[in-house]
Amino acid sequence: MFSQTTEYALRAMALLAYYPDQLVPTPTLAEETKVPPTYLAKVLQQLSGADLITGRRGVGGGYKLSKAPEQINMLDVINAVAPIRRITTCPLGLADHGSNLCPLHRRMDSAAKVIIELFEGVTLADLVNQREGSRPLCDKAKAAKLTVSISKK
Amino acid sequence: MFSQTTEYALRAMALLAYYPDQLVPTPTLAEETKVPPTYLAKVLQQLSGADLITGRRGVGGGYKLSKAPEQINMLDVINAVAPIRRITTCPLGLADHGSNLCPLHRRMDSAAKVIIELFEGVTLADLVNQREGSRPLCDKAKAAKLTVSISKK
Repeated sequence: MFSQTTEYALRAMALLAYYPDQLVPTPTLAEETKVPPTYLAKVLQQLSGADLITGRRGVGGGYKLSKAPEQINMLDVINAVAPIRRITTCPLGLADHGSNLCPLHRRMDSAAKVIIELFEGVTLADLVNQREGSRPLCDKAKAAKLTVSISKK
Repeated sequence: MFSQTTEYALRAMALLAYYPDQLVPTPTLAEETKVPPTYLAKVLQQLSGADLITGRRGVGGGYKLSKAPEQINMLDVINAVAPIRRITTCPLGLADHGSNLCPLHRRMDSAAKVIIELFEGVTLADLVNQREGSRPLCDKAKAAKLTVSISKK
Protein backbone atom coordinates (compact mmCIF):
# COMPACT_ATOMS: atom_id res chain seq x y z
CA MET A 1 0.00 0.00 0.00
CA PHE A 2 2.90 2.30 0.77
CA SER A 3 5.78 2.57 -1.65
CA GLN A 4 9.37 1.84 -0.80
CA THR A 5 10.01 5.57 -1.16
CA THR A 6 7.39 6.34 1.48
CA GLU A 7 8.91 3.82 3.88
CA TYR A 8 12.39 5.27 3.32
CA ALA A 9 11.22 8.87 3.71
CA LEU A 10 9.58 8.04 7.03
CA ARG A 11 12.70 6.29 8.26
CA ALA A 12 14.89 9.25 7.32
CA MET A 13 12.56 11.73 9.00
CA ALA A 14 12.34 9.61 12.14
CA LEU A 15 16.12 9.54 12.34
CA LEU A 16 16.38 13.31 11.88
CA ALA A 17 13.72 13.75 14.57
CA TYR A 18 16.08 12.24 17.14
CA TYR A 19 18.55 15.09 16.47
CA PRO A 20 16.44 18.13 15.62
CA ASP A 21 19.27 20.59 16.21
CA GLN A 22 22.06 18.81 14.37
CA LEU A 23 23.05 18.30 10.77
CA VAL A 24 23.09 14.52 10.40
CA PRO A 25 25.72 13.41 7.86
CA THR A 26 24.18 11.63 4.87
CA PRO A 27 26.34 8.49 5.29
CA THR A 28 25.02 8.19 8.86
CA LEU A 29 21.47 8.65 7.57
CA ALA A 30 21.98 5.93 4.96
CA GLU A 31 23.54 3.55 7.42
CA GLU A 32 21.00 3.98 10.20
CA THR A 33 17.95 3.90 7.96
CA LYS A 34 19.38 0.97 5.95
CA VAL A 35 18.53 2.76 2.72
CA PRO A 36 20.88 2.50 -0.31
CA PRO A 37 22.74 5.86 -0.49
CA THR A 38 21.73 6.74 -4.06
CA TYR A 39 18.08 5.95 -3.34
CA LEU A 40 18.27 7.94 -0.11
CA ALA A 41 19.76 10.94 -1.95
CA LYS A 42 16.64 11.10 -4.13
CA VAL A 43 14.31 10.76 -1.15
CA LEU A 44 16.16 13.55 0.69
CA GLN A 45 15.84 15.78 -2.36
CA GLN A 46 12.08 15.27 -2.34
CA LEU A 47 11.87 15.99 1.39
CA SER A 48 13.99 19.07 0.89
CA GLY A 49 11.78 20.15 -2.04
CA ALA A 50 8.79 19.95 0.30
CA ASP A 51 10.66 22.14 2.82
CA LEU A 52 10.63 19.45 5.47
CA ILE A 53 14.42 19.31 5.76
CA THR A 54 17.30 21.65 5.11
CA GLY A 55 20.95 20.90 4.46
CA ARG A 56 23.36 20.23 1.71
CA ARG A 57 24.23 17.36 -0.60
CA GLY A 58 27.59 15.82 -1.32
CA VAL A 59 30.74 15.12 0.67
CA GLY A 60 30.52 16.70 4.11
CA GLY A 61 26.83 17.31 3.59
CA GLY A 62 24.03 16.48 5.92
CA TYR A 63 20.47 17.28 6.77
CA LYS A 64 18.28 18.42 9.63
CA LEU A 65 14.56 19.01 10.05
CA SER A 66 13.38 22.42 8.96
CA LYS A 67 10.81 22.49 11.80
CA ALA A 68 10.49 20.96 15.24
CA PRO A 69 9.48 17.26 15.32
CA GLU A 70 6.23 18.34 16.97
CA GLN A 71 5.36 20.40 13.88
CA ILE A 72 5.80 17.70 11.23
CA ASN A 73 3.31 14.86 11.00
CA MET A 74 3.49 11.54 9.16
CA LEU A 75 1.13 12.81 6.48
CA ASP A 76 3.47 15.72 5.69
CA VAL A 77 6.23 13.20 5.05
CA ILE A 78 4.11 10.85 2.98
CA ASN A 79 2.69 13.70 0.93
CA ALA A 80 6.21 14.94 0.16
CA VAL A 81 7.04 11.74 -1.72
CA ALA A 82 3.74 10.04 -2.67
CA PRO A 83 0.73 12.24 -1.94
CA ILE A 84 -2.46 10.62 -0.69
CA ARG A 85 -5.27 12.22 -2.63
CA ARG A 86 -8.97 12.33 -1.83
CA ILE A 87 -11.27 11.52 -4.75
CA THR A 88 -13.48 14.52 -5.28
CA THR A 89 -14.85 13.93 -8.77
CA CYS A 90 -15.47 10.88 -10.96
CA PRO A 91 -12.04 9.59 -12.14
CA LEU A 92 -13.66 8.45 -15.39
CA GLY A 93 -15.00 11.91 -16.02
CA LEU A 94 -18.57 10.66 -16.35
CA ALA A 95 -20.71 13.72 -16.80
CA ASP A 96 -23.63 12.71 -14.62
CA HIS A 97 -21.41 11.48 -11.77
CA GLY A 98 -19.31 14.59 -11.18
CA SER A 99 -18.81 14.96 -7.45
CA ASN A 100 -21.60 12.46 -6.78
CA LEU A 101 -19.23 9.49 -6.49
CA CYS A 102 -20.34 5.96 -7.33
CA PRO A 103 -20.03 3.25 -4.63
CA LEU A 104 -16.63 2.16 -6.00
CA HIS A 105 -14.98 5.55 -5.82
CA ARG A 106 -16.81 6.43 -2.63
CA ARG A 107 -15.12 3.46 -0.97
CA MET A 108 -11.73 4.37 -2.37
CA ASP A 109 -12.17 7.92 -1.14
CA SER A 110 -13.21 6.66 2.29
CA ALA A 111 -9.96 4.73 2.46
CA ALA A 112 -7.95 7.83 1.57
CA LYS A 113 -9.86 9.85 4.19
CA VAL A 114 -9.21 7.32 6.95
CA ILE A 115 -5.51 7.13 6.14
CA ILE A 116 -5.13 10.91 5.97
CA GLU A 117 -6.78 11.29 9.38
CA LEU A 118 -4.64 8.54 10.86
CA PHE A 119 -1.32 9.99 9.72
CA GLU A 120 -2.25 13.61 10.22
CA GLY A 121 -2.62 12.91 13.92
CA VAL A 122 0.89 11.53 14.46
CA THR A 123 3.91 13.84 14.63
CA LEU A 124 7.55 12.86 14.33
CA ALA A 125 7.82 13.68 18.03
CA ASP A 126 5.14 11.06 18.77
CA LEU A 127 7.25 8.53 16.89
CA VAL A 128 10.56 9.10 18.61
CA ASN A 129 9.68 10.35 22.08
CA GLN A 130 8.23 7.10 23.34
CA ARG A 131 10.25 5.98 26.33
CA GLU A 132 9.10 2.39 26.52
CA GLY A 133 9.15 -0.43 24.00
CA SER A 134 11.08 -0.40 20.73
CA ARG A 135 12.01 2.90 19.08
CA PRO A 136 12.19 3.65 15.35
CA LEU A 137 15.51 2.62 13.75
CA CYS A 138 17.17 1.88 17.08
CA ASP A 139 18.22 -1.34 18.60
CA LYS A 140 19.92 -0.77 21.92
CA ALA A 141 23.50 -1.11 20.66
CA LYS A 142 22.97 1.11 17.62
CA ALA A 143 21.21 3.83 19.58
CA ALA A 144 24.29 4.29 21.75
CA LYS A 145 26.69 4.24 18.80
CA LEU A 146 24.60 6.73 16.83
CA THR A 147 24.60 9.31 19.62
CA VAL A 148 28.39 9.15 19.83
CA SER A 149 28.98 9.34 16.09
CA ILE A 150 26.78 12.40 15.63
CA SER A 151 27.87 14.37 18.67
CA LYS A 152 31.49 14.26 17.48
CA LYS A 153 30.66 16.34 14.37
CA MET B 1 -2.23 5.68 -2.26
CA PHE B 2 -3.65 3.25 -4.79
CA SER B 3 -1.82 2.59 -8.00
CA GLN B 4 -3.25 3.15 -11.46
CA THR B 5 -3.26 -0.63 -11.85
CA THR B 6 -5.44 -1.01 -8.74
CA GLU B 7 -7.89 1.58 -10.02
CA TYR B 8 -8.08 -0.13 -13.42
CA ALA B 9 -8.49 -3.60 -11.91
CA LEU B 10 -11.39 -2.39 -9.79
CA ARG B 11 -13.04 -0.75 -12.79
CA ALA B 12 -12.71 -3.93 -14.86
CA MET B 13 -14.11 -6.10 -12.08
CA ALA B 14 -17.01 -3.72 -11.49
CA LEU B 15 -17.90 -3.89 -15.16
CA LEU B 16 -17.75 -7.68 -15.20
CA ALA B 17 -19.94 -7.72 -12.08
CA TYR B 18 -22.79 -6.17 -14.08
CA TYR B 19 -22.77 -9.21 -16.39
CA PRO B 20 -21.75 -12.17 -14.22
CA ASP B 21 -23.01 -14.78 -16.68
CA GLN B 22 -21.59 -13.32 -19.89
CA LEU B 23 -18.22 -13.18 -21.54
CA VAL B 24 -17.59 -9.45 -21.95
CA PRO B 25 -15.50 -8.73 -25.07
CA THR B 26 -12.17 -7.11 -24.23
CA PRO B 27 -12.76 -4.10 -26.53
CA THR B 28 -15.99 -3.43 -24.63
CA LEU B 29 -14.12 -3.75 -21.34
CA ALA B 30 -11.46 -1.29 -22.50
CA GLU B 31 -13.99 1.18 -23.79
CA GLU B 32 -16.30 1.15 -20.79
CA THR B 33 -13.54 1.24 -18.18
CA LYS B 34 -11.61 3.89 -20.15
CA VAL B 35 -8.42 1.90 -19.76
CA PRO B 36 -5.86 1.76 -22.60
CA PRO B 37 -6.25 -1.72 -24.20
CA THR B 38 -2.62 -2.83 -23.77
CA TYR B 39 -2.63 -1.75 -20.11
CA LEU B 40 -5.96 -3.46 -19.58
CA ALA B 41 -4.63 -6.69 -21.11
CA LYS B 42 -1.93 -6.83 -18.43
CA VAL B 43 -4.41 -6.09 -15.66
CA LEU B 44 -6.74 -8.82 -16.92
CA GLN B 45 -3.85 -11.26 -16.95
CA GLN B 46 -3.16 -10.51 -13.30
CA LEU B 47 -6.83 -10.89 -12.38
CA SER B 48 -6.92 -14.16 -14.31
CA GLY B 49 -3.74 -15.31 -12.57
CA ALA B 50 -5.47 -14.72 -9.25
CA ASP B 51 -8.43 -16.82 -10.46
CA LEU B 52 -10.85 -13.93 -10.19
CA ILE B 53 -11.80 -14.02 -13.86
CA THR B 54 -11.86 -16.60 -16.63
CA GLY B 55 -11.83 -16.13 -20.36
CA ARG B 56 -9.51 -15.86 -23.29
CA ARG B 57 -7.22 -13.26 -24.74
CA GLY B 58 -7.00 -12.00 -28.29
CA VAL B 59 -9.48 -11.37 -31.08
CA GLY B 60 -12.92 -12.65 -30.16
CA GLY B 61 -11.79 -13.06 -26.58
CA GLY B 62 -13.49 -11.84 -23.49
CA TYR B 63 -13.73 -12.32 -19.78
CA LYS B 64 -16.23 -13.08 -17.04
CA LEU B 65 -16.01 -13.36 -13.27
CA SER B 66 -14.95 -16.78 -12.03
CA LYS B 67 -17.29 -16.46 -9.02
CA ALA B 68 -20.50 -14.62 -8.22
CA PRO B 69 -20.14 -10.87 -7.52
CA GLU B 70 -21.24 -11.61 -3.93
CA GLN B 71 -18.20 -13.84 -3.47
CA ILE B 72 -15.50 -11.42 -4.57
CA ASN B 73 -14.62 -8.44 -2.40
CA MET B 74 -12.63 -5.30 -3.16
CA LEU B 75 -9.65 -6.61 -1.21
CA ASP B 76 -9.51 -9.73 -3.42
CA VAL B 77 -9.21 -7.46 -6.44
CA ILE B 78 -6.62 -5.14 -4.90
CA ASN B 79 -4.55 -8.06 -3.64
CA ALA B 80 -4.53 -9.59 -7.12
CA VAL B 81 -2.61 -6.61 -8.52
CA ALA B 82 -0.96 -4.77 -5.59
CA PRO B 83 -1.29 -6.70 -2.34
CA ILE B 84 -1.83 -4.78 0.89
CA ARG B 85 0.47 -6.34 3.45
CA ARG B 86 0.34 -6.12 7.22
CA ILE B 87 3.67 -5.39 8.90
CA THR B 88 4.39 -8.27 11.22
CA THR B 89 8.10 -7.87 11.92
CA CYS B 90 10.56 -4.96 11.90
CA PRO B 91 11.20 -4.02 8.22
CA LEU B 92 14.76 -3.03 9.16
CA GLY B 93 15.38 -6.45 10.63
CA LEU B 94 16.43 -4.97 13.99
CA ALA B 95 17.05 -7.92 16.25
CA ASP B 96 15.49 -6.54 19.42
CA HIS B 97 12.39 -5.24 17.64
CA GLY B 98 11.23 -8.42 15.93
CA SER B 99 7.46 -8.54 16.10
CA ASN B 100 7.48 -5.80 18.75
CA LEU B 101 6.96 -2.98 16.27
CA CYS B 102 8.21 0.54 16.93
CA PRO B 103 5.69 3.45 16.86
CA LEU B 104 6.49 4.18 13.19
CA HIS B 105 5.80 0.71 11.88
CA ARG B 106 2.93 0.19 14.31
CA ARG B 107 1.18 3.18 12.70
CA MET B 108 1.91 1.94 9.20
CA ASP B 109 0.54 -1.47 10.14
CA SER B 110 -2.57 0.13 11.65
CA ALA B 111 -3.18 1.84 8.34
CA ALA B 112 -2.88 -1.45 6.46
CA LYS B 113 -5.24 -3.12 8.94
CA VAL B 114 -7.90 -0.43 8.58
CA ILE B 115 -7.76 -0.55 4.80
CA ILE B 116 -7.91 -4.34 4.70
CA GLU B 117 -10.98 -4.35 6.92
CA LEU B 118 -12.63 -1.63 4.88
CA PHE B 119 -12.21 -3.39 1.52
CA GLU B 120 -12.78 -6.89 2.81
CA GLY B 121 -16.28 -5.87 3.76
CA VAL B 122 -17.35 -4.67 0.31
CA THR B 123 -18.22 -7.17 -2.44
CA LEU B 124 -18.52 -6.45 -6.14
CA ALA B 125 -22.25 -6.99 -5.69
CA ASP B 126 -22.31 -4.16 -3.14
CA LEU B 127 -20.67 -1.91 -5.74
CA VAL B 128 -23.00 -2.56 -8.65
CA ASN B 129 -26.34 -3.48 -7.07
CA GLN B 130 -27.09 -0.05 -5.69
CA ARG B 131 -30.30 1.18 -7.25
CA GLU B 132 -30.05 4.84 -6.37
CA GLY B 133 -27.39 7.43 -7.08
CA SER B 134 -24.54 7.02 -9.53
CA ARG B 135 -23.31 3.54 -10.48
CA PRO B 136 -19.73 2.48 -11.25
CA LEU B 137 -18.69 3.14 -14.86
CA CYS B 138 -22.21 4.04 -15.97
CA ASP B 139 -23.69 7.28 -17.01
CA LYS B 140 -27.27 6.83 -18.04
CA ALA B 141 -26.67 6.86 -21.79
CA LYS B 142 -23.74 4.43 -21.63
CA ALA B 143 -25.53 2.01 -19.35
CA ALA B 144 -28.26 1.52 -21.95
CA LYS B 145 -25.79 1.18 -24.82
CA LEU B 146 -23.65 -1.31 -22.92
CA THR B 147 -26.55 -3.64 -22.22
CA VAL B 148 -27.44 -3.71 -25.91
CA SER B 149 -23.87 -4.23 -27.12
CA ILE B 150 -23.23 -7.17 -24.82
CA SER B 151 -26.55 -8.93 -25.19
CA LYS B 152 -26.03 -9.16 -28.96
CA LYS B 153 -22.96 -11.40 -28.52
